[in-house]
Amino acid sequence: MITLKGAVVSAKIKEEVTELLRELAGTIPRLAIVRVGERPDDMAYERGALKKMENFGLQAESFSYPADISDEDFQAEFKKINENPGIDGILLLRPLPKQIHERDIERMILPEKDLDGISPENIARVFAGESEGFAPCTAEAVIEVLKANDISLTGKRVAVVGRSMVVGRPLSMLLLKENATVTICHTRTKEIEKTCQNAEILIAAAGQAKMIDPSYVGADAVVIDVGINVDNDGNLCGDVDFESLNGVASMATPVPGGVGAVTTAVLAKHLVMAARKRRGSRA
Amino acid sequence: MITLKGAVVSAKIKEEVTELLRELAGTIPRLAIVRVGERPDDMAYERGALKKMENFGLQAESFSYPADISDEDFQAEFKKINENPGIDGILLLRPLPKQIHERDIERMILPEKDLDGISPENIARVFAGESEGFAPCTAEAVIEVLKANDISLTGKRVAVVGRSMVVGRPLSMLLLKENATVTICHTRTKEIEKTCQNAEILIAAAGQAKMIDPSYVGADAVVIDVGINVDNDGNLCGDVDFESLNGVASMATPVPGGVGAVTTAVLAKHLVMAARKRRGSRA
Repeated sequence: MITLKGAVVSAKIKEEVTELLRELAGTIPRLAIVRVGERPDDMAYERGALKKMENFGLQAESFSYPADISDEDFQAEFKKINENPGIDGILLLRPLPKQIHERDIERMILPEKDLDGISPENIARVFAGESEGFAPCTAEAVIEVLKANDISLTGKRVAVVGRSMVVGRPLSMLLLKENATVTICHTRTKEIEKTCQNAEILIAAAGQAKMIDPSYVGADAVVIDVGINVDNDGNLCGDVDFESLNGVASMATPVPGGVGAVTTAVLAKHLVMAARKRRGSRA
Repeated sequence: MITLKGAVVSAKIKEEVTELLRELAGTIPRLAIVRVGERPDDMAYERGALKKMENFGLQAESFSYPADISDEDFQAEFKKINENPGIDGILLLRPLPKQIHERDIERMILPEKDLDGISPENIARVFAGESEGFAPCTAEAVIEVLKANDISLTGKRVAVVGRSMVVGRPLSMLLLKENATVTICHTRTKEIEKTCQNAEILIAAAGQAKMIDPSYVGADAVVIDVGINVDNDGNLCGDVDFESLNGVASMATPVPGGVGAVTTAVLAKHLVMAARKRRGSRA
C-alpha cells in the first residue's frame, strides 16, 4: 500500500502559490484568522495555519476574542475585519459559542474574503459546480490530494462517508464536478460496508476514530482519510484504521500527515486568489 | 407494476393547502409567473400553473415580456414585481434569453418570494438540509410522490440519474435529508445500468427520452420519472420506457400524469407558505 503524504501535495500547491504571488508584484496577501475562546483544536489549527502562511510567504494575523463575548460585540468586531481593506481573506474558526448567531456571520462575510466557503453565495456556487467562489478548504484538499497523485476521477465510483457541511456535502459536489459517480453514505446507511466496498475511491469524513477497516474497503481501492480524532490512548488518529489496510487498499492517506497538511495549503491558495481578485487590477 | 399517479398526490397536497389557507383568514395568496418570450414549454407550464392555482383557490398573474427585452428593462420590471407587496411569490420561467443576466435575477429575487429555489440563500439551505427555505418545486415533487405513497426513504439505496440544478442536485440533498443513501449518476458514469440496478429507488432526471429500460432496473424497484421529452412520434414521454418495466419494477410514475402534476401542487404549497410567513402575523 502506497502512503499518500500531504507534504508532497502541499509542496506542489506552494509552487502554484509562489507563481500567483509573482503576478501580485510585491503585494503580500494578508489573512485574518478569527477565533472566539480557546478550544484546543481551534488553537492547533490556528498555529498550523499561521505557520503555513509564513512558510508560503504570506501574512496572517490572529484576531481572538473571549469565549463569553456578546453577539453584538462580536458582530461589530467581525464587521471591522470584514471591511478592513488591508485584509484579503478571513478564516473563521467554528463552531462559535452558542450566544453568537453564526448564521448572521455567514451572511455578513464578504464572499470574496470567505476563504473557507461559509457564505450562501459560495455554498451555492459549490453546489452548482461552478469554478468561481471558494469551497471549504478541507473538502478541496481531498481533490488536491487525488489530483497531485494523478488519480483520475472521471467515471470513478467514489463513496463519501459523512454528510457534513464542512466536508461530506461540499466534497460530494466537487467530486461530481470532476465527473465521479458519487455515493453519499452516513450513519443511517444500511449495509454500509458493502456500499463502501463497491467504491474505487473511499473517502472517510465521518468523525469516528478508526471506523474504516478492511471490511469497508474494496480490493486496490484508494482511501482518503479526512478524520481528525483522538484515540483511547490520547493519540491523534483518523477515521481509518490505516495499518489494517495493508494488502487491501492500493493507496491511503495517513493521519497525521495526510489531508490536514493540505487543508492549510488550500487556505493559502485561496488567500492569494482572493488577493489577486481584489487587488489584481491595481497591482 | 403499480402506477403512481400524480393526481392522487396533488389531491393530498390540495388538502394541506386548504388547511393552511384557512389560517390565513380570507387573505388569498397571489403568485406572479414571469415569462420572457413565448417558448412552447414555458407556455405549457404557465397554463398548467395558472389552472392549478385557480383549482387550489389561489390567485395567479402572468407577467410576460418580449423575447428581445433588454437586460436593463427586464431587471427594472422584475424589481417592481419583487417589491410589490401584493405579490407573495414568484415563479420565473427559465432559461431566460441570452441578453438577460440570469445570475443578477437569482441574486435579486427575495428569498421569501423565491418559490422555486433559485436564490443563493435558498440553494444554500437546501444544500445544508435545512427545513426553512424553498427547494426547486420539481425536486420536492419527487419527495412528495414517495411520501404520499408511504415509500420510506431512510437507509434506502436511491440512485438519481442526472445532476442538474433544477432536479438532480437539489433532489439528492432532499433525499439525503430523508436519510437515503444517495448515488448521483450522470453521462460520465461507467456501467450506469449496473449502478442503477443496485438501487431500491431509481429516479430518472436525465432529459433523455425513454432512456431507462429494464436493464437499469433492479427487481421490485420503485421508479420515478422526472423527464419531460417528446418522442419520435411527437408525443410527450418521460426518461423511462414505462411499459417495458412491467414485471420488473414494483411501482412507477407515468409521463404525463406523474411528477409533473405534483410540481405545480408543490408550487401552490410554497405560495401559501410564503404568504403565511409574510402576512401570517398580520392575518
